[in-house]
Amino acid sequence: MASGFYFLYGLCLCLSLLCALFVVSWGLYWRGGFAWDGSQLHFNWHPVLMVSGLVILYGNSAVVYRLPFTWKQKKLIWKLVHAGMMFLALLLSGLGLSATFDFHRAFNIPHLYSVHSWVGISTVVLFSSQWLLGLAGFLLPCSPTWIRTSLKPVHIWMGKVILVFSLISCVSGINEKLLLTLNGVSAALYNTLPVEAVFVNFLGILIVAFGLGVFGILSVKKWQRPEADPENHVNYQPYHVSSQIK
Amino acid sequence: MASGFYFLYGLCLCLSLLCALFVVSWGLYWRGGFAWDGSQLHFNWHPVLMVSGLVILYGNSAVVYRLPFTWKQKKLIWKLVHAGMMFLALLLSGLGLSATFDFHRAFNIPHLYSVHSWVGISTVVLFSSQWLLGLAGFLLPCSPTWIRTSLKPVHIWMGKVILVFSLISCVSGINEKLLLTLNGVSAALYNTLPVEAVFVNFLGILIVAFGLGVFGILSVKKWQRPEADPENHVNYQPYHVSSQIK
Repeated sequence: MASGFYFLYGLCLCLSLLCALFVVSWGLYWRGGFAWDGSQLHFNWHPVLMVSGLVILYGNSAVVYRLPFTWKQKKLIWKLVHAGMMFLALLLSGLGLSATFDFHRAFNIPHLYSVHSWVGISTVVLFSSQWLLGLAGFLLPCSPTWIRTSLKPVHIWMGKVILVFSLISCVSGINEKLLLTLNGVSAALYNTLPVEAVFVNFLGILIVAFGLGVFGILSVKKWQRPEADPENHVNYQPYHVSSQIK
Repeated sequence: MASGFYFLYGLCLCLSLLCALFVVSWGLYWRGGFAWDGSQLHFNWHPVLMVSGLVILYGNSAVVYRLPFTWKQKKLIWKLVHAGMMFLALLLSGLGLSATFDFHRAFNIPHLYSVHSWVGISTVVLFSSQWLLGLAGFLLPCSPTWIRTSLKPVHIWMGKVILVFSLISCVSGINEKLLLTLNGVSAALYNTLPVEAVFVNFLGILIVAFGLGVFGILSVKKWQRPEADPENHVNYQPYHVSSQIK
């Protein structure tokens, strides 16, 4: 049972690493590197930060409760790890958005015109709302049990929805950037499939494969953290339940 | 319970209709109409057939077992409806692919160069394999029960994966087509957000919203067709089980 999980989890970790390597290499090798100075290089942070935040960190944080070695440990610790990783993911995606807005301002390019940008901004808005609702519902000790119980299936479902949004945003963004940069240099260069295009198309495929790996882990019920764990439950009762016990 | 289902199902039907109206209007009003003659108009079938097949028909067929009024009827009838709708969806998407390949040949444009096309072709390949496996596993009476039992969760999971692929393909395709057509006429016209761009961006949002509606229906367990239905079960035993009964 656990071997199946660790195989898929290992695959996801390898795909995470490959996605990171591919997106950084794209910026370094083909797009001239990185800078935060309003130049063309400023934009190159956008794909790196979005893929790192919305895909790699988000996906790895989504499956953190599934790690069998954590099931004997207090759930609160892993809630904090999950929330912390998600916060970092949100921070990176926020920085990634600001990289593209700064670049647009510097080159007088209008913001939010493509369907990629519409889906992308919706992803970050949904993700921010999900994070704030998760914080209020599951981490603040004053939130009542009925809220936690009703919020949990919605939180899990919204988590998967946001990952679908992230995959759509990243793949459409890669397509857009390749069309704009390669075709901007010489007519229809993207369709001659230069090495950059093949390499970055593969990045798109790696991102989708990672997303599917995460969905695969989330879809297996026996890999869920067991709910019945009285010790941890007592350690993390909401306030009003704790006071009833006292 | 059923009212929640019918609300979401009604929403999905409305979104299906809107997606169809939007994608046909795009072709008719802004792209000059439709023809099957190797001209620019030949390509216009591509978005219409892909959205109709991979999104509208596929999504509606995925939720056909959830309709409460079908639960008292023989499951075999609804298996045939599901398989028939999926076959039609596959046929439309095959035609949609041929529209783009014909257009590329006529205008000497290379095939399968963008990440949209890579994800898109993977979607149709996965969909074809899923349909054939579904036919062999669930409709051919000679397939043994253990195959049906093991295949069912994989079939359901793959069905959702293919829908995610379809959404990625459609949104990235819309983005690509707008970048290639609008920017081909005057520099960076897409980023000035003409009416066509706003209209077609909304088509992308409608497609994503429809996909989420379908995922919403599929994620609610109490909306699943009840499994325990001995009458229907006897009516559709695989051959080897029927012979044991006799």
